[in-house]
Amino acid sequence: MSLRARIRAEGHLIDSGKLTRIFDRIVQDGATYEVVHFEIGRTNDQVSTVELRITAPSTEVLDELLVNLLPLGASRVEPKEARTETAPADGVVPEDFYSTSNHPTEIRLGDSWVSIERPRMDTVVVVEEDRAVGTKLRDVRKGQRVVVGRDGIRVHPPDKERDRAHFGFMTNEVSSEKQVELVVQRLVADIAEAGERDGRTVVVAGPVVVHTGGVEPMERLISAGKVGAILSGNALAVHDIERALYGTSLGVHAETGETVTDGHRNHIRAINVIRRAGGITAAVEQGILTRGIMHRCVTERVPFVLAGSVRDDGPLPEVITDMNAAQNAYAEVLRDASVVLILSTMLHGIAVGNMLPSSVRTVCVDINPAVATKLADRGSSEAIGVVTDVGLFLSLLADRIA
Amino acid sequence: MSLRARIRAEGHLIDSGKLTRIFDRIVQDGATYEVVHFEIGRTNDQVSTVELRITAPSTEVLDELLVNLLPLGASRVEPKEARTETAPADGVVPEDFYSTSNHPTEIRLGDSWVSIERPRMDTVVVVEEDRAVGTKLRDVRKGQRVVVGRDGIRVHPPDKERDRAHFGFMTNEVSSEKQVELVVQRLVADIAEAGERDGRTVVVAGPVVVHTGGVEPMERLISAGKVGAILSGNALAVHDIERALYGTSLGVHAETGETVTDGHRNHIRAINVIRRAGGITAAVEQGILTRGIMHRCVTERVPFVLAGSVRDDGPLPEVITDMNAAQNAYAEVLRDASVVLILSTMLHGIAVGNMLPSSVRTVCVDINPAVATKLADRGSSEAIGVVTDVGLFLSLLADRIA
Amino acid sequence: MSLRARIRAEGHLIDSGKLTRIFDRIVQDGATYEVVHFEIGRTNDQVSTVELRITAPSTEVLDELLVNLLPLGASRVEPKEARTETAPADGVVPEDFYSTSNHPTEIRLGDSWVSIERPRMDTVVVVEEDRAVGTKLRDVRKGQRVVVGRDGIRVHPPDKERDRAHFGFMTNEVSSEKQVELVVQRLVADIAEAGERDGRTVVVAGPVVVHTGGVEPMERLISAGKVGAILSGNALAVHDIERALYGTSLGVHAETGETVTDGHRNHIRAINVIRRAGGITAAVEQGILTRGIMHRCVTERVPFVLAGSVRDDGPLPEVITDMNAAQNAYAEVLRDASVVLILSTMLHGIAVGNMLPSSVRTVCVDINPAVATKLADRGSSEAIGVVTDVGLFLSLLADRIA
Amino acid sequence: MSLRARIRAEGHLIDSGKLTRIFDRIVQDGATYEVVHFEIGRTNDQVSTVELRITAPSTEVLDELLVNLLPLGASRVEPKEARTETAPADGVVPEDFYSTSNHPTEIRLGDSWVSIERPRMDTVVVVEEDRAVGTKLRDVRKGQRVVVGRDGIRVHPPDKERDRAHFGFMTNEVSSEKQVELVVQRLVADIAEAGERDGRTVVVAGPVVVHTGGVEPMERLISAGKVGAILSGNALAVHDIERALYGTSLGVHAETGETVTDGHRNHIRAINVIRRAGGITAAVEQGILTRGIMHRCVTERVPFVLAGSVRDDGPLPEVITDMNAAQNAYAEVLRDASVVLILSTMLHGIAVGNMLPSSVRTVCVDINPAVATKLADRGSSEAIGVVTDVGLFLSLLADRIA
Repeated sequence: MSLRARIRAEGHLIDSGKLTRIFDRIVQDGATYEVVHFEIGRTNDQVSTVELRITAPSTEVLDELLVNLLPLGASRVEPKEARTETAPADGVVPEDFYSTSNHPTEIRLGDSWVSIERPRMDTVVVVEEDRAVGTKLRDVRKGQRVVVGRDGIRVHPPDKERDRAHFGFMTNEVSSEKQVELVVQRLVADIAEAGERDGRTVVVAGPVVVHTGGVEPMERLISAGKVGAILSGNALAVHDIERALYGTSLGVHAETGETVTDGHRNHIRAINVIRRAGGITAAVEQGILTRGIMHRCVTERVPFVLAGSVRDDGPLPEVITDMNAAQNAYAEVLRDASVVLILSTMLHGIAVGNMLPSSVRTVCVDINPAVATKLADRGSSEAIGVVTDVGLFLSLLADRIA
Repeated sequence: MSLRARIRAEGHLIDSGKLTRIFDRIVQDGATYEVVHFEIGRTNDQVSTVELRITAPSTEVLDELLVNLLPLGASRVEPKEARTETAPADGVVPEDFYSTSNHPTEIRLGDSWVSIERPRMDTVVVVEEDRAVGTKLRDVRKGQRVVVGRDGIRVHPPDKERDRAHFGFMTNEVSSEKQVELVVQRLVADIAEAGERDGRTVVVAGPVVVHTGGVEPMERLISAGKVGAILSGNALAVHDIERALYGTSLGVHAETGETVTDGHRNHIRAINVIRRAGGITAAVEQGILTRGIMHRCVTERVPFVLAGSVRDDGPLPEVITDMNAAQNAYAEVLRDASVVLILSTMLHGIAVGNMLPSSVRTVCVDINPAVATKLADRGSSEAIGVVTDVGLFLSLLADRIA
Repeated sequence: MSLRARIRAEGHLIDSGKLTRIFDRIVQDGATYEVVHFEIGRTNDQVSTVELRITAPSTEVLDELLVNLLPLGASRVEPKEARTETAPADGVVPEDFYSTSNHPTEIRLGDSWVSIERPRMDTVVVVEEDRAVGTKLRDVRKGQRVVVGRDGIRVHPPDKERDRAHFGFMTNEVSSEKQVELVVQRLVADIAEAGERDGRTVVVAGPVVVHTGGVEPMERLISAGKVGAILSGNALAVHDIERALYGTSLGVHAETGETVTDGHRNHIRAINVIRRAGGITAAVEQGILTRGIMHRCVTERVPFVLAGSVRDDGPLPEVITDMNAAQNAYAEVLRDASVVLILSTMLHGIAVGNMLPSSVRTVCVDINPAVATKLADRGSSEAIGVVTDVGLFLSLLADRIA
Repeated sequence: MSLRARIRAEGHLIDSGKLTRIFDRIVQDGATYEVVHFEIGRTNDQVSTVELRITAPSTEVLDELLVNLLPLGASRVEPKEARTETAPADGVVPEDFYSTSNHPTEIRLGDSWVSIERPRMDTVVVVEEDRAVGTKLRDVRKGQRVVVGRDGIRVHPPDKERDRAHFGFMTNEVSSEKQVELVVQRLVADIAEAGERDGRTVVVAGPVVVHTGGVEPMERLISAGKVGAILSGNALAVHDIERALYGTSLGVHAETGETVTDGHRNHIRAINVIRRAGGITAAVEQGILTRGIMHRCVTERVPFVLAGSVRDDGPLPEVITDMNAAQNAYAEVLRDASVVLILSTMLHGIAVGNMLPSSVRTVCVDINPAVATKLADRGSSEAIGVVTDVGLFLSLLADRIA
């Protein structure tokens, strides 16, 4: 290993800001660069190509830098084959393993580039014959061949969408009704397009959906066939069911806003009723649960996955209390998602964000700017953060689409 | 059942604001009251006694009101015996079950009042011979006798502590260094007192503890014997271990603040190292993990419970992935807690808050005023919310106590 | 001066929590009390009366305590006459002056109680013959008689409105659409009632009104005669006019949300146009300004006062750049206000809050919970904080009333 | 005027992201570009040069685009002379005036480029003989020649500082003590350098400085000669003086955190004392005011400017109540500032931000991330936002420098 390397990148290097980030990365890691070749796209439609000679003060710095440049789309000019080592035990990989980003990635096997199956963040790459599969650490089995080092790996980060700039304002402070309408309009188109591509729209929802008047528009969206699946936790379901059975949510009356009881009694009563029935689906079938989001999911056969959490009351029978099982169930539902709508839930939103390839359109709605920004920033260039009341947002969406 | 009832309450009814809340509750629920008897405490030290005649427009309103008045310390003048019904199935209770608050509560069995064992919020009361046990819904077994209705129940909400007023400012906006020091001073006394009473101090910590420089003061507190146990999740442990092994936390260098790598690589590497060793304790024993909070817990034999969540990477071997098991493990640790310190974690903080009787001194530290207030407000009259940098807070605490 | 004093209070002492606060105050200031007499209101409609004997460790503590108890409605059983001293210079008062609250207050002159004219917070009381006038410090003239000490002063804090409890939720986190509708409904009634009582509704508005789509509903409210006056600053007017002239606000296109220009050019252009015309009113009369909030104020003859600030660009000709003059102009407009609606402006909201007696219904709308709470908490028992999008709020209000 | 134009830009076009923003701007404004010539800097130290041919659909679009490209450093290849028109009245300029950014700007007069004097945001350019002076709208006099259109204007935006990237984390969520220390360290160097360059450090401070324990470190910084001037308002001075005279700030005791009085009495008392003395300086000279920030300013002859606001109580005699006069006084003080430290004040912070050229190092400290970000983002590439407790920040700074 020498202290020099030649790397190459191609694409909308200027428009997307990639070249800026490549230069920043090199300097920040303590190396220097020289531009060997640069061909700029003459117009907005043409791609650019750059070739750099990097000089690093040590092998360690160079190796680290080469790994760091991969997710920016820059890799060695002359590709070597990817190296693999065998996993020493179940759920354990060699120290020098390659950890994926959420962008399309290729591995050099023999003389050809092979795309990684199931790309998502923070997986390792298991090679089996001529296949390369993104695999969660805990799913790796002893003896499997795992990609290590930085050779023979190529990442294709998406070019920043031009029209994303139009939505940039969304992460700033308060968004106006007009601006929220613009996002809704765009989302309607994305959902329609998803339908045509046999993809689907997955809604990840927190209990605030119930508190802010989102139940009725969610019911309409489900009935209109616009919701492919719902991912949530115990709280959303219990709040929705408490509201359906008693008209309250955590003891606050949904229509009048008055505190009906001091404590959480209706909350626990709702859980008890569903447990007695044997579950949400059973309660719908027995005519006990006759309205709300969960009811509509059952009658419209929209799958839902409820992941447990340590703060749950109950929980409801359908809640998956084992977190590994819950992650697997989430991932299964997300496999054919084209659009993901994250509604006021940091916990489930981050869980889902970790599972998605960057090609999935993600919209995060939250009244708290910090949450909308944080979720939107987690690596996906397609994510949009919208700061607004989630009930209002769902109303606007349902009015236009359902 | 008549439309009238006589209720009685005793204690620092004025100072604590209880009488105000009793009157509010009656009017809000649509009933009226007449003061039959009132004896005010002549001085600050004496208790007051009030007896009211309540008139309600319907049986339903009266019943609901009587339940609502219980956690305010008001109950019927002439106590009836508590009613019970048998649980129809495992984890299911009769519809009209009584749901507990986190205050000391007594049940009328025969001619005597029996204290509920293990009081905490949102449990049901199982009666076995002459014992009454607070029981989580899912732990109730078919055939057990469960308290229903509102008769024969008496709650003793604590009188608001006088000196709590002095800490009231803490939930407002920014607290000054001076004010934070006042809380620290008070907390030091509470921790010392806990030690004398054979109680202990349980720390509930989020990963922000690592990001804000809290590792070193936590190490000192643990070594000084001031931490009885730590309750947390996968994230705190991984961040702490990533920092111990590589000097970074989520790829950000702890000392220089520079981004070391683009992604989460060190995060996943840390998990892999611990998994290979067989767990945190094993990694300490093998000399792999030599510093940080988790390391110190192992060497000082301070128990820790890590509850999983759906957003976890890995997770580490010690993480309890089943949420029911995790709740049970948390509750076990909290059984002899006298002081609970919740540090920047809404998820685990609410989980813990739900498990505590109101007699436990709880201090919630968060830079976000909404979180500090929310946690402090969840029912415990002893809870104090402190809005400040959690790393700074721990530094001040360790300087004074460790 | 002895170390003991007898004080008396009357009213809904329990329901309103006043007695709790009186006891708290006494203990907190280091004194003790003994209840000499207490007569509790038998029903919800009857008032209570209490008489206390206070014992203080020193004259200073007693004097301070007696002053502190005044705004809680507690004063000496046997009233002495109020003491006055002459102002030593213009805008300067004797050291021991009495500083008013925003509650109705009476001064003992000779044998009778005289109500203070123009009650508001933080004024001093100037006595002229048999009148007592609340006067701002800077308006006091040398030689005027100013009330000092704590004798002969009686304050009547309003009893907490029962139905205010119903709006208590508003200051918590996110309010649902349903809950916002409840506030709107109540506000509509207040505005109607204000009209009947010859009072009026004053709107205090920040520039966010323009950014969030509030221009059109404000126009409707003005035309419907529901806005008695507008208090604001340079920014609201400039943003409104920029939008009217160029369709942008701070360079962001109101309809499409796109950034039209990098900088603030349209902002400065709008100012220039109005300055050239000679002012807002002149620009409307010359047919240059043909829509927006300011335009509508001019055509509907609704008075507006624009107070300057150190961050202003321009400013527009109508802006009052001297702060004393601006405060006087605000106070003049507020003199006959019955309802005050504060929309997303902390600066002008606090200015206005300082000027209002507690009898004025005040509603503060802000997307930031901290601001809504802060404004609502500033002393007025009638203030309600609503956390929501101000544009949405105005839309709902205009739909219902205009 | 044709529909095509050739523009040119030079500098660290890639590293600084300028070229990305130039391309974005062109496409967003509805035009297209072709790269005529591009020479990339071979290494990190070399600048790049680009020449583009722009095609726009209309004259209006092209004109608008050319104006929009100026602050990005791109201007016509063949410079024309700048056009001017005469101001039609005092404080009014021709419609098509050029509005400045806060970057160094040159105007083409005859055959040479002339630098604008006193560059700051949102001024117009008045040409007098061979000078070009940035002038606030209201200071323009009838008949003066004002630059209009987009010809003959050249802007030099600074290249993003490399080491600014290291501070980028500061605007994200909570900053750790370690990270705050890094900023402090850097700031110490900046302040030292300012001293050597005959520049100075101006502190812009809000009243939170007093509440968070910042008085003592500010006193030390002033005595150590590190504070060139203080810009603030009435509130900081009154809170500081209330604390100096009575130990409270808005009635809250600085040492114990206890509420001393219910109302604002000490606040108004402090104002009265200073008014009686004839002002802050007079009160210091008369031995009435003997500690605190304002006291130290007077004894150390550090100039301060207090700008009034419509929410002020009093105000103190030194407060400038006319906003135009206050802006002029601020601007005068800022004229030779090299470092500006904005401490928890959005109002004065934005006022100051508007007055500064981009070459001034600006650090904004606020506990609220939204404020720190907002101030830091206002156009200056040198601005750094730090999210932390301002009292803590000042303590760290004073410990290191004073």
